[in-house]
Amino acid sequence: MHLSTASRAVRGSAIRDLLSLTSRSEVISLAGGLPAADLLPRERIAAAAAAALTDPAAVQYGETAGLPSLRAVLTAHETALCGRPVTDVVVTSGSQQGLDLVARALLDPGDPVVVEEPAYVGALQVFQAAGAAMHPVPLDADGLQVDVLERRLRDGLRPRLVHTVPTFHNPRGVTLSAQRRVRLAALAERFGFLVVEDDPYGLLAFDGVPPVPVAAHSDRVVRLGSASKVLAPALRVGWLSGPPELLAAVERLKQCTDLCTSSLTQTITADLLGDPAWFDAHLRRVRDATAARAAAFTAAVAGHLPGASCSVPAGGMFCWLELPGVDTTALLPRALGHGVGFVPGSAFAVDTQQPHSLRCCVVSHPEPVVTEAVRRLARAAT
Amino acid sequence: MHLSTASRAVRGSAIRDLLSLTSRSEVISLAGGLPAADLLPRERIAAAAAAALTDPAAVQYGETAGLPSLRAVLTAHETALCGRPVTDVVVTSGSQQGLDLVARALLDPGDPVVVEEPAYVGALQVFQAAGAAMHPVPLDADGLQVDVLERRLRDGLRPRLVHTVPTFHNPRGVTLSAQRRVRLAALAERFGFLVVEDDPYGLLAFDGVPPVPVAAHSDRVVRLGSASKVLAPALRVGWLSGPPELLAAVERLKQCTDLCTSSLTQTITADLLGDPAWFDAHLRRVRDATAARAAAFTAAVAGHLPGASCSVPAGGMFCWLELPGVDTTALLPRALGHGVGFVPGSAFAVDTQQPHSLRCCVVSHPEPVVTEAVRRLARAAT
Repeated sequence: MHLSTASRAVRGSAIRDLLSLTSRSEVISLAGGLPAADLLPRERIAAAAAAALTDPAAVQYGETAGLPSLRAVLTAHETALCGRPVTDVVVTSGSQQGLDLVARALLDPGDPVVVEEPAYVGALQVFQAAGAAMHPVPLDADGLQVDVLERRLRDGLRPRLVHTVPTFHNPRGVTLSAQRRVRLAALAERFGFLVVEDDPYGLLAFDGVPPVPVAAHSDRVVRLGSASKVLAPALRVGWLSGPPELLAAVERLKQCTDLCTSSLTQTITADLLGDPAWFDAHLRRVRDATAARAAAFTAAVAGHLPGASCSVPAGGMFCWLELPGVDTTALLPRALGHGVGFVPGSAFAVDTQQPHSLRCCVVSHPEPVVTEAVRRLARAAT
Repeated sequence: MHLSTASRAVRGSAIRDLLSLTSRSEVISLAGGLPAADLLPRERIAAAAAAALTDPAAVQYGETAGLPSLRAVLTAHETALCGRPVTDVVVTSGSQQGLDLVARALLDPGDPVVVEEPAYVGALQVFQAAGAAMHPVPLDADGLQVDVLERRLRDGLRPRLVHTVPTFHNPRGVTLSAQRRVRLAALAERFGFLVVEDDPYGLLAFDGVPPVPVAAHSDRVVRLGSASKVLAPALRVGWLSGPPELLAAVERLKQCTDLCTSSLTQTITADLLGDPAWFDAHLRRVRDATAARAAAFTAAVAGHLPGASCSVPAGGMFCWLELPGVDTTALLPRALGHGVGFVPGSAFAVDTQQPHSLRCCVVSHPEPVVTEAVRRLARAAT
């Protein structure tokens, strides 16, 4: 069968392929980026679903741009976060769809884009499908190396967009410093690109204070938000704010992509996000539990993997481990044999292989299980 | 802002733009293709949602290809319908997403595709976004004119795919004859194209007997199914069966498009479709009500619009009216002034304008309202 160029360009996600291996009951999986099942607000969602389903509108088609009530909650939320008026959003079927629609709206095959190295796998897939020319810029402990980006721009690189997960990076666990955020926004204005600020984790700051978004500093920023990590993935609700002309193009493309996001899950999301007393208490509970699990992970690494270096997260879901001298791709089958799963760094590589690195999602299990997972990993690695 | 070629190629749907005009309370809208609110099984969905939400899996991410339990129900359903084993499906976020993913998997810019004239607007948008070269083939009372298609093929046309809504066509209301289905399948085999059999309405046959699918006659057919018209649009659940290589490509592209369809709405759908006693009774109720509304519409047209010709539907949601000598695009604002909305035929045109035609969705309102709508239309047209 003759498949399209786009279809042949997209590599399957190694992580999604891993999910079946790591879902065996004897394996403690630190592989998938799954919110902790015990922290998902199932009962509150059930109450919201029951309330929503008293209204016929909740089972009907809705506007492509999203339910007006949800958009009102989201624009207020983004306005507060960015410290300047955000007048509109488009609701998307998860922030992954937001990213895909932005790429479809902006990119022709061959167009240059800047991605992070290592990168969120779902972003690499989107840019592969778009046929974009990817230019990776490395990360360090303060996030994207904006000085390296600036040098490339001065040398003539003219990307259409720069994709970044600035806060609690997937997979690296790091956060873009405040100074670099200001500088990145200034570069966007000066060199005429858009920053795609992919921010599903910002509200999961362990100290309860999300970093100031890049979008606070420039209107050349597309912000992607998501209910998946703060409420539940199965809502499939994300949102996108940015230049009005881009939002209009995204809305038109969303018509042909899926007509609209579910009115039912949008109504549920509007209910939960529009109930600040409940939502704040819920977020606090999730943050506290997540912080405890992340602390258990880093403590166990210090105790059982003395040669390793480990990112110390300030929020989000991921730790990035470096095991000097260990080939983490070869380690994976041994680790599964010892009953623990992770994602090798190579899954996130653009140009630079990450042979000694691995990503662990540290939030999916209670502390004793997290600690046991690290013990198993240490046994497999030695 | 520089937008992509794809983004500039997609025209907004005139129908979606009309929805805001026709949603005014004094207007009886026959414009949108909306299932009747009073026939949506809201209470059964609420019960299924409550049951689903006792399980943490219902709020978590799921496999990209879809929930195994739902896929099992759907393969059984498709196997029964096609009269031959359908071994796998990919669940999509509505059948609109299925169509978009098929186009992305198969088409490079410039690739030829055959579309119907007039056509489903969402298909035209998908092929515009893909940059495909559209070759329209007209419809008559027996659906797609397969003899016209055959002539074009003999003359050298080599489409990658032929898109058709063979059953209870949107917007034309007609159904592809059994003989033409066999012939279309044979042409697919002979000339090496795929038929995309877009079938959201088949189960809404007024006599309870859906026509035998084109896919019964060849494995060069991609079938698109949807829960939107038989259960509820807000589930955003569709499905796609076809050649395994295509399903694999679609699954890979779906990873980067939205990761997965909602586990919650998939669980609800599996519950409802997997309960044949309830589902059969529900379908019967929807079919009977729909048939009564369609009959009220055609009777009112005969009574109040004597010069008009009107398709007589055997199922589905739409009637196609021809008003000789009337410019239906110019008629629309007058009709809205008289309190009735419809979609002018021009919205569905590919190459051939449809100046005297219009589409009415005849299922959204009870019979007296349908009759009153036609009365208003007649007043506006004279």
